[in-house]
Amino acid sequence: MSPGDVLSWIAVDWGTSNLRVWAMGEDARILAAVESPLGMNAIAGDPKLSFETVLIGLINDWLDGSASPVSVVICGMAGAKQGWIEAPYCDVPCKPGDLAKGAVKPDVRDPRISVSILPGLCQRGDADVMRGEETQLVGFMAQNPDFAGWVCLPGTHSKWAHVSDGRITAFRTYMSGEVFALLSQNSILRHSISDDWDDGVFANAVRTALAQPGGFLHNLFTVRAGALVAQGGALVPPGASVLSGTVIGSEIADVLGLLEAGEDIALIGAGKLASLYQAALAVHNHSATPQDGTAITLAGLARAYKVVAGG
Amino acid sequence: MSPGDVLSWIAVDWGTSNLRVWAMGEDARILAAVESPLGMNAIAGDPKLSFETVLIGLINDWLDGSASPVSVVICGMAGAKQGWIEAPYCDVPCKPGDLAKGAVKPDVRDPRISVSILPGLCQRGDADVMRGEETQLVGFMAQNPDFAGWVCLPGTHSKWAHVSDGRITAFRTYMSGEVFALLSQNSILRHSISDDWDDGVFANAVRTALAQPGGFLHNLFTVRAGALVAQGGALVPPGASVLSGTVIGSEIADVLGLLEAGEDIALIGAGKLASLYQAALAVHNHSATPQDGTAITLAGLARAYKVVAGG
Repeated sequence: MSPGDVLSWIAVDWGTSNLRVWAMGEDARILAAVESPLGMNAIAGDPKLSFETVLIGLINDWLDGSASPVSVVICGMAGAKQGWIEAPYCDVPCKPGDLAKGAVKPDVRDPRISVSILPGLCQRGDADVMRGEETQLVGFMAQNPDFAGWVCLPGTHSKWAHVSDGRITAFRTYMSGEVFALLSQNSILRHSISDDWDDGVFANAVRTALAQPGGFLHNLFTVRAGALVAQGGALVPPGASVLSGTVIGSEIADVLGLLEAGEDIALIGAGKLASLYQAALAVHNHSATPQDGTAITLAGLARAYKVVAGG
Repeated sequence: MSPGDVLSWIAVDWGTSNLRVWAMGEDARILAAVESPLGMNAIAGDPKLSFETVLIGLINDWLDGSASPVSVVICGMAGAKQGWIEAPYCDVPCKPGDLAKGAVKPDVRDPRISVSILPGLCQRGDADVMRGEETQLVGFMAQNPDFAGWVCLPGTHSKWAHVSDGRITAFRTYMSGEVFALLSQNSILRHSISDDWDDGVFANAVRTALAQPGGFLHNLFTVRAGALVAQGGALVPPGASVLSGTVIGSEIADVLGLLEAGEDIALIGAGKLASLYQAALAVHNHSATPQDGTAITLAGLARAYKVVAGG
């Protein structure tokens, strides 16, 4: 923080393998930000670490001169069973306010902070869970109050949530990122994966995934077979493009089958992965511009802060 | 071999990671059998080993007293590019005799043997390949000349081949076995996998796979989410049953979509894996009794022997 900055509250996104903390001023201004590799797994695996001491180690300087306890609002795995304190899942359908009302306050020894840990979401019918992404959904809904449709958060475990009438009505996790990583690094397909890339081959694999939705486990093998049947001189389709298009295409084809008339698709994320989802959606004539996930996380935490601080 | 046995020819199934050899007498009688872990990978990875010396090491005693060179008929990875000598793929559609005619004879130093290595199969449209299973198909077709439909050979890479009018017309590889192994051992789902098993849970996952053919990457995650959303006292569905039913169910649902009226399904294999495929087929009211794969491999090699020996 710069001299003269007045700390209003502290925003925290505590993931499985990393931790991001922001000092927030008035009007959602970011005064300072810090990151750490001490995600839930690192802390749960080391008896010498506690969530409170890790947090204080990062924000101690920011707290100097604070008169009353500063609100710390946390989303993510800090609320898991193996986290700081369990914040029981909130069931869908739900409204953003329901999530904030479900926040759990752990006992803290440092009198300068008042901590609220937000719950994750669960769905009991078609069993599913999320922790952390729900806060991005809340931020997205605050910025897009009239949105109706499916919001995509690509990742190791991609999340798609259905939003309408100011509620999160359902969601679906797809293991796409983890399946891609395992297949490209640990399966027989790794021999067919290189840095070569072809946008057209990717797009074709995305089309095949929609045309043959049940053929996923077979379509994967074409990554290898495509190279083996290519005859002398024929170009071998780049395996990474086929595999990526097959995996992302399968996920997107499934969600498109759930999209109702008049509904939109939104994409939260950045970098190459978000671009691939954007390209795969474009193959099916859906336009979705990736939106910055960090800004949306902060908007979601700010929305929760207003509730937990009674604002 | 016992005293008095007369060696007629030698049958070999040379796989990626193991090798099986049989001394064959007249009338398809098995005189002796031997197995070795020296599959293609072990030999290709060790400059001190050669296919011929490995083979002779196993069959040397059988060759004593043979007057003319003994025919050795080999199927499997010995014919791969990294094998003994490449036996170029035979394209589908094809007849069993086409495969035998495509056999390649490597030069051998030992005058007591005459070696024929059978080709694999390839499909160029919907790119696919097999090496070894095609000989089981030939054996199956010799025993079931009127069969029309899909023949399933479950495994790390399951193969389904369409057979009609005495031809292999098409085939599809599914990476089911490898995907199951990676997910149950190396993914986040490993925490939800134990020795617990429930036939009803398996059957339900098989049904879900047919009802939601495009939902594979999502249905996988229910292995984990099902445990997390189970409320106090509720039974957690055994993860292995959900995962196995999801993977095998996805494969079977895809093939059932290709099955035409009046066509049958046959299942070649043994042990627990074949039983799971039989159970999954039964969920969809298809009856298929697993048939012993070794006998069928030998029937296929015997059919090829007749052609290569000019019989």
